[in-house]
Order: sequence, then structure tokens, then C-alpha cells
Amino acid sequence: MSDKQSTKPPAGTRDFLPDDIRRREYVIGVVRGVYERCGFEPLETPAFENIETLLGKYGEEGNKLIFKILKRGEHEASGEADLALRYDLTVPLARVVAQYQNELPRLFKRYQIQPVWRADRPARARFREFYQCDLDAMGSTSPVVEADILGAVCEILTTLGFGDFVVRLNHRRVLTALLETAGVPAPQHGDALVALDKLDKIGADGVAKEFAARGIAEAAAAKALTLFSAGPERPETTMARLTGLLAGHEGVANLAEIVRLAESTPAAGRIRLDSSLARGLSYYTGAIMEVAVEGIGSLGGGGRYDNLIGMFLGREVPACGLSLGLERIIVVMTERGMFPAAVTGGGIDVVVTFMDDDSRAEALRLATELRGLKHRVDLYPESSRKFDKPLKYAASRGARVMAIFGENERTRGEASVRNLQTREQQAVPSDEAPAFIAELLNREP
Amino acid sequence: MSDKQSTKPPAGTRDFLPDDIRRREYVIGVVRGVYERCGFEPLETPAFENIETLLGKYGEEGNKLIFKILKRGEHEASGEADLALRYDLTVPLARVVAQYQNELPRLFKRYQIQPVWRADRPARARFREFYQCDLDAMGSTSPVVEADILGAVCEILTTLGFGDFVVRLNHRRVLTALLETAGVPAPQHGDALVALDKLDKIGADGVAKEFAARGIAEAAAAKALTLFSAGPERPETTMARLTGLLAGHEGVANLAEIVRLAESTPAAGRIRLDSSLARGLSYYTGAIMEVAVEGIGSLGGGGRYDNLIGMFLGREVPACGLSLGLERIIVVMTERGMFPAAVTGGGIDVVVTFMDDDSRAEALRLATELRGLKHRVDLYPESSRKFDKPLKYAASRGARVMAIFGENERTRGEASVRNLQTREQQAVPSDEAPAFIAELLNREP
Repeated sequence: MSDKQSTKPPAGTRDFLPDDIRRREYVIGVVRGVYERCGFEPLETPAFENIETLLGKYGEEGNKLIFKILKRGEHEASGEADLALRYDLTVPLARVVAQYQNELPRLFKRYQIQPVWRADRPARARFREFYQCDLDAMGSTSPVVEADILGAVCEILTTLGFGDFVVRLNHRRVLTALLETAGVPAPQHGDALVALDKLDKIGADGVAKEFAARGIAEAAAAKALTLFSAGPERPETTMARLTGLLAGHEGVANLAEIVRLAESTPAAGRIRLDSSLARGLSYYTGAIMEVAVEGIGSLGGGGRYDNLIGMFLGREVPACGLSLGLERIIVVMTERGMFPAAVTGGGIDVVVTFMDDDSRAEALRLATELRGLKHRVDLYPESSRKFDKPLKYAASRGARVMAIFGENERTRGEASVRNLQTREQQAVPSDEAPAFIAELLNREP
Repeated sequence: MSDKQSTKPPAGTRDFLPDDIRRREYVIGVVRGVYERCGFEPLETPAFENIETLLGKYGEEGNKLIFKILKRGEHEASGEADLALRYDLTVPLARVVAQYQNELPRLFKRYQIQPVWRADRPARARFREFYQCDLDAMGSTSPVVEADILGAVCEILTTLGFGDFVVRLNHRRVLTALLETAGVPAPQHGDALVALDKLDKIGADGVAKEFAARGIAEAAAAKALTLFSAGPERPETTMARLTGLLAGHEGVANLAEIVRLAESTPAAGRIRLDSSLARGLSYYTGAIMEVAVEGIGSLGGGGRYDNLIGMFLGREVPACGLSLGLERIIVVMTERGMFPAAVTGGGIDVVVTFMDDDSRAEALRLATELRGLKHRVDLYPESSRKFDKPLKYAASRGARVMAIFGENERTRGEASVRNLQTREQQAVPSDEAPAFIAELLNREP
């Protein structure tokens, strides 16, 4: 019990004060509402997993960033870990799909909104504890699944008030076919994708250098660069080029169908094709998607990954999913003033105060009645002959009305009601006070 | 990527499938609503704290039950821990009060609803990961605070549908005064309280044995047992006895005032005094409270603890709080069938299906329109000439309506709409289908 030790939250984590929580709950409410209307079901998993569930699933770099929990009791001294904090929401989903395979439907649509923990070096807007909002549909390879997910994410962003977003779309099998066309050998595809993914950031020259550094033959590299677009294009532009280059290719047909179907969803008009989009992840097997806001960049992304969800099940399960970055969305919405005033401005409605201890019960009774009418009501808990302290408190809490009980009021069976905006004060019979105050609150502020 | 490793969640933890989450969200929604109406503000803290923040705060036994996180990177091999998982919500609150002392109001009312982790031996209905719902009011010693908190917890239980609950109430200073009256020396008060706390479970004989085992003199023990009630009593009964035994005692006066004030809140008629209630915790300084349901026992409790919140601040902060056990509430409500049908019965409203791939876009368009009307709509993503699979799927999801698109419908610009309860099916012009289905859904099920 020292008063010297640090009282900051651990490096890379944050305390969430009321307005932070209200903003997050607002966004989660919108996300959850859309996911539910789209027929997805909620899932949550424990904060930690058995360590062998997580190790080896995120590559060597990922292994280092996993928070590991020491064995307990007599085993603590061994310095060994047997549990690890959730690092993403996909591996726990894969475990759940295996564990409950007999209970879950073949077509399983779930969403999961929970924090994950990564021991990244903390930086501006990069945290060690952050929320992921994952949406995954398992059990079908139909392009209707992609269109449905694209529609859902566009509905979310529209509802949150974003007007200037697009969904960048690409396709893993088209990427592969283009690289083959360019003459890049299959074993070098991974390296080539990592380089191409940066095309919109470092330009064609930068990618050419990366190709060279990774030992991709100059001719193949040069050809590849003529085949890929730098940045998003209108679907018709890309589709025309792809149809010429890869006539009859099954990946192109799949991409075209997803684009066509998305036009019947809230994603209509939002789709841009971007043939260099790879999202760095090697596990995509079909569509690759990324939601991007003008001047801000990615707010989330995903794609089809037909070989991942079955990792614990022992057989493959087709799946397509998308992950939204909650922190990023909240930062952008805060900077742009996109939150409705009621989300964070929302203080309490009424402070009830009393001038002598004999009036406490009257004050509690009025507070109870007003709360029954669904108003937010606080009590200033200490008697106060002067108003300055309760008034200051009421102001700090954003209250619009103060109710006052004292000896005079008690004798006459009244409450004094003060409109804190107009400073008008009026005595009202106690039993009429709840309705009187409710009427005051229902007026335009 | 082995298919042999366990896919169960770690010992003592649970995966939350949809109905589990819906039940929990329902209860949290009620709790949060009441807390907000009572003027409390939300607070959340990180899942882990610096280890020195937690160590030494929960006694020797507690230290062993804390989940500790290994240092990362090159320090991992040391086997040392520098972080630890949240063990309760009170120590993080004390840290927050110290850290943000210049930003937080002197009167600070906060609620916090988050999971905590304890490495207890797992047992039936005892988990290593569980939610706490804490409510604390800091900065005032007024009995209005206790009455307000008692009112809030009773409002929650009433709203959830509990009819048969009481709040057991006691007072630390009254406990101490009664032990002094009995002649139990102050250094033995702690031992005596631990024994007395079991009075309603092990009876007077059991407590007498415990007193003897703890070396409390026989005369004092015998006298003490005549002074304490075994179990809850109507307030007037206890107050009459206490007023006789401890005339003018300040703790008795405080208890009487809390009882009186609670009558002006939703706690009216719910208070029972129980002079043996100690709740095992030595940090209570005033009122001690416990919410108990007939035949079930405690659903939560708390009290006044004026010396705890200031542990990091270096000066004392008066505080009174209460913690509700979410898991216990959910278990009882489930056993008693207290959840509204809509909480868990709530499947989706409509499944849209198509008989050929050319009808996919129509199906997506109708789903989008129905979701815009706030209905929960799923798509069966694969074309199916026969209805058995989509029908089975719709049944498994609890859908009431199925909409079908096929070549015939497409040619005529229609949708077939099937009422899954009456099995009536009807062709409707496509543009009228959303309104037609909405009308079907709005009928009584």
C-alpha cells in the first residue's frame, strides 16, 4: 500500500472513462445491430486459451507478441506458461467450430466483438489491448456470402455516418493467375504479393526494387507491373482488363459475380477493384476485401479463407470473414465530430438536493419517482444550507434541473424546482413535482 | 495444426454461445440502465495491471490466485511476471481514483461491469473467468449514499423479475460494539466475526465451538451469542433490541437512519437486519449489505469501506459500494424461466432462398430491403431446386417466413412467400414483397 508506485495503466493499455465507454458502446451497438439483422449470431470465448492452442498459429513474430500466463501455485516457480491471452478472434473461432461441431449448424454465421492482446511496441493509436469486431460465415463457397458480408460492412459505415468510403476488392486466385501470366514462378508468389501489396504506397519503382531484392527475374517483374493496377478502380475498368488477360478464368468469374451481387446490397456503388490488394496475409483463398475511408485508409478488411477454420477440426471448412478495427473507427469519428451529441454530451437530467437532514427522505422519494419515469437523477448526498456546492455539482454533471428540499418546503409539502438553464425557480406541490420536472425536461433544451 | 489437441476452453472458463450471450446482455442491459438512471458513470480498466498494483492487495491466499503474465521477448526466459490479470474491480478503481484525481469529481459515482480472473479450483458454478458488476459512490459519508445504493440494487432485482428477495443489512460499528459489550477483547474481534458470520449456517452450537477453537473466553462467547440474531429480522425487531443494548451508539443511529431512508427508495419493505452478517471482509467500516433470494442465497453484496479506495492516493476517501454476481443471477433466472421469450427464443425472422443462381441478386435485394425495415434476415446462400435443405435451415434458425426466388418468379417479377407456421405459400409482386412480409411478421405469432 504505497503511495509512490505508478498509478498509470500498464504500457499500451488505457483506462476507459465514461465518454470513452459511451463512444465505444455506441459503435458496438450499431455494429451488433447490423450483424444481427444480417442473421449472424454472437459468440464469445475466454480471454485466455491453452497456450498450445495459440502457439504456432501466428508465425514466429506472432509467437513473440503473445502474452503468456505463468503456471500457478507450486508450478509458478518453473517459469513456464500454460495459458496465453487471446491474440485474435479467428483461432478461437476455429477451436469452437471443432469443439461444438455436432451442435453448430453446417452454415454457421457468427460475430464476435471482444478485446485481444498483443505485445506490440506501444505507439500512437497502437495499443496492446484493443477490440476486434469479427464477422464470419462458414460452410458455403457461394459468392452470395461475400456479397452479404460486403453489404453488412457498408450498412455499418453508412449508419455510423461515413459517406466517403469504398470497399477495395481483389481475388487471391486472380492475383495468382496474373503472376503466372507474368512468368513469376509459383514459389516466388508469396514474395511478389508482399511487394505488390505496397504498390499504392511505394509506386511501381519501389515495387520493382523489392522484386529485385527478392530475386524475382527482371523480365517477370517488369511484366507483372504492367498487369496490376496501382490503387482502386471502378469495377468495369478492372473487369474489362482482366477479362482480356484471363479469359474464362474461374477466379475472374467469381470476382465478377461478387461485384454483380454486391450491387443488390448496401455495398452498391461502393466497390472498387484493386488488383494489387493482398492484405499481406497468405491464408486468403478467394476474395480479398478492405474498407477504406478517403484520406484515412483502412478501417478493416478480410476475405475468403477456405483452409483456416478447419485447423482444429481436421477437415476443411469454407469460410469468409471480415474484421473491423473499432479503435480506428472511434478515433476517426471523434476527430470528425461524427458522434450524436446524446452519446457523450449526455450527463444526468436532474440533481436533487436538500438543505437539512430532515429532508433527506423527501429527496430520495423524488429521485426514485423521477427514475421510475426513466430520467437520470443524481442526489447531492450532503445537506447544504447554501446552494453553491450542489449548483456547482449539478453544472459539472450537465444537469438541467435541480430540485431542492428544505424546512420551508417540507412544512408546505412542496419542492423547489430550479431550471438550471433559465435560472427560474418555482415551488411545486411535492406530489406534482415528478410530472412538473418531466415536463421541463421534455422541452427543447 | 494438429487435430488431436484439445479444443475445450481452458479449465474453469467457458465459451459463450449465442443464447448465453443474449442472456448475459439482457441482464447487463437492466443493470446498466438502473445504474445510469441513478446517476452512476461507466468505467472500464485494462484486463491486466502492473503486477505490483495487485500483489499484496488480496492477502496471501489471493496472491496465489492471481493470474500472472510472463515478461516478453528476451525477458521471457527469466520466468518472471510483470503483469497480472484483473482480480477484482476495486483495486483498479482505487488506482483510477489516484491517477485521475484532478479530473474526477470529489463525489464520484461509477459502475464497472467487466470480467475478472481468479485461479480458484474450478467447481460447479465457480469459474476462473467471471463477470463482476460493481457500483461505488465515493466522496461522501452521508447515509443517503447507502440508501441510494440499496434502492438501485432492489430496482435491478425487481426489474429482472425477482419477487422474493430481501437485503440483509448490518453495520460494522454495531458488530464491534456488541462484541465489546459481550467482553470479547478487540484483538479477537476478527476471529469472532469470522465465526459469527456462519451463525445462520452452523447455528449457535457451531459458533460456540468455533469461538472456543479460536480461544475466545467462554463467558464472553456465551454472552456474545445472546446478543446476535441468527438470521434476518424485520428492522423494528432488531432496532428495538439494539437501542436497548447500545443506547445512543453512533453506529446504531447510522444504521437506523439508513433503514429509515431506504423506505423512500425501491428498497422499501426489502430491508432485513441481521446482526451476525459480516461478509467475511475486514475492510467494511460502516453498513454491510447482502442481497439474498429465498432458497438461493446471496446474489451480491457490499458495504461502506472508508479506508480502501485511498490505498494508492495516500489519503482516505469515503466510499460505499456493492457488487452483483452476474453468473449467479443468470443461473437462477435460467432455472426459474425468468428470461422473456424474446431474449433467447429470438431466432431470425426470414430466410430468403433461391432455386437457381440467376435469382441470387433478387434474393439479396429482398434481404437488404427487409433488413432496412429492421427485420432479422438470413440468406440461404446456395441455390436449391428442392426446398428441404432451406426449409430445414429456416426451421433450425426459428424463422417464421421463407421467401423463394426461382425462374418462374423471376419471369413474372414475383417472390414466393411462405408462412412457415401455417405453411401457406403465396406469390407476391417483388416490389410488394417487403411490405407483405413485414405485415406477416407483425401478426401475432
